[in-house]
Amino acid sequence: MTITTSPAPIRNGIDTAQVYGTLDVLKAQPEAARFEFRVRNSWIDGTHSRSTIHGFWGAGAEDASRTEPFVVDASEPPVLFGHNEAPNPAEYLLHALAGCLTLTIVNVAAARKVELYEVSATLTGVLDARGATGIDPAYRNGFERIDVSFSIRGDASPEKLAEVVERAKARSVVYDMVANGVPVAVTTDVR
Amino acid sequence: MTITTSPAPIRNGIDTAQVYGTLDVLKAQPEAARFEFRVRNSWIDGTHSRSTIHGFWGAGAEDASRTEPFVVDASEPPVLFGHNEAPNPAEYLLHALAGCLTLTIVNVAAARKVELYEVSATLTGVLDARGATGIDPAYRNGFERIDVSFSIRGDASPEKLAEVVERAKARSVVYDMVANGVPVAVTTDVR
Repeated sequence: MTITTSPAPIRNGIDTAQVYGTLDVLKAQPEAARFEFRVRNSWIDGTHSRSTIHGFWGAGAEDASRTEPFVVDASEPPVLFGHNEAPNPAEYLLHALAGCLTLTIVNVAAARKVELYEVSATLTGVLDARGATGIDPAYRNGFERIDVSFSIRGDASPEKLAEVVERAKARSVVYDMVANGVPVAVTTDVR
Repeated sequence: MTITTSPAPIRNGIDTAQVYGTLDVLKAQPEAARFEFRVRNSWIDGTHSRSTIHGFWGAGAEDASRTEPFVVDASEPPVLFGHNEAPNPAEYLLHALAGCLTLTIVNVAAARKVELYEVSATLTGVLDARGATGIDPAYRNGFERIDVSFSIRGDASPEKLAEVVERAKARSVVYDMVANGVPVAVTTDVR
């Protein structure tokens, strides 16, 4: 007799059993839902700085899963007074938005039993530098708008795939922050 | 006879002559002020995706200064269903904010003839995951707030250094976007 076991509930690389277990924990222990993420940044020279990203608080404990910190630089191209040491901060904001929408699409699809074959996106942000340079206050400093163009393939109907994207927009952490803004408090220790 | 030339106007690693020249160009040719930045992102597996950052439009032309693209990954730690392949998108948003505030501080200081010795920052963002998981609509998806704590040293009075930080807040591209939000349009090609 052959016993056929169900495949492990991994879909799109997401462990759906872990996802449902986590949701149960968050419902039973709301204090586990608090997350605090941290970045430490140090200026190097000119437009060039470096962030170190390591620990965070989440699920009721200080995370210990990262044995080494992530190190990520930012700078500017020559036309914006840097030397192309790294992507610029506005490009990192687009990267943050892309990464968050994409992983939220993948999580939503996994929960809805949709297998994805491809998720790719092009993001563009347009700004008028008369804002940030202070030349003309009629222009804002940041992007006037951001356009995100997704290309998605999966084993569901076009309607269902489009629904997955809409749901991901409604649940994405970074989409919420970029689209709606976040209160930012800056304090300075001057020595 | 010895002719003493002024030192090259490089301050804090910023070529201040280039900065003033650029401001003159933007005033005379407003069409040069339009910048378009772009990120292409592709899903790899699970929460893991990869952005390619290369060309951009700015100063009246498609930039040709970057011979190779920047490649930047994003993912999640295990508690958020990933495998720590890279920082997560919310951490990248903090990195974008840190990098932009820091380089704007450096630019403003250079213009005001302030030599900086140190600019470092710690950023924290707090969220309640009951928002993004859809468990409780009373919570937003993103950070409730972001705290930025700068430590700055330079050859100016504490008052002047504090003014530089205030001016940088008022001129930072990413601070504006994070604090005030940006319209985001998402379109999807489903195949």
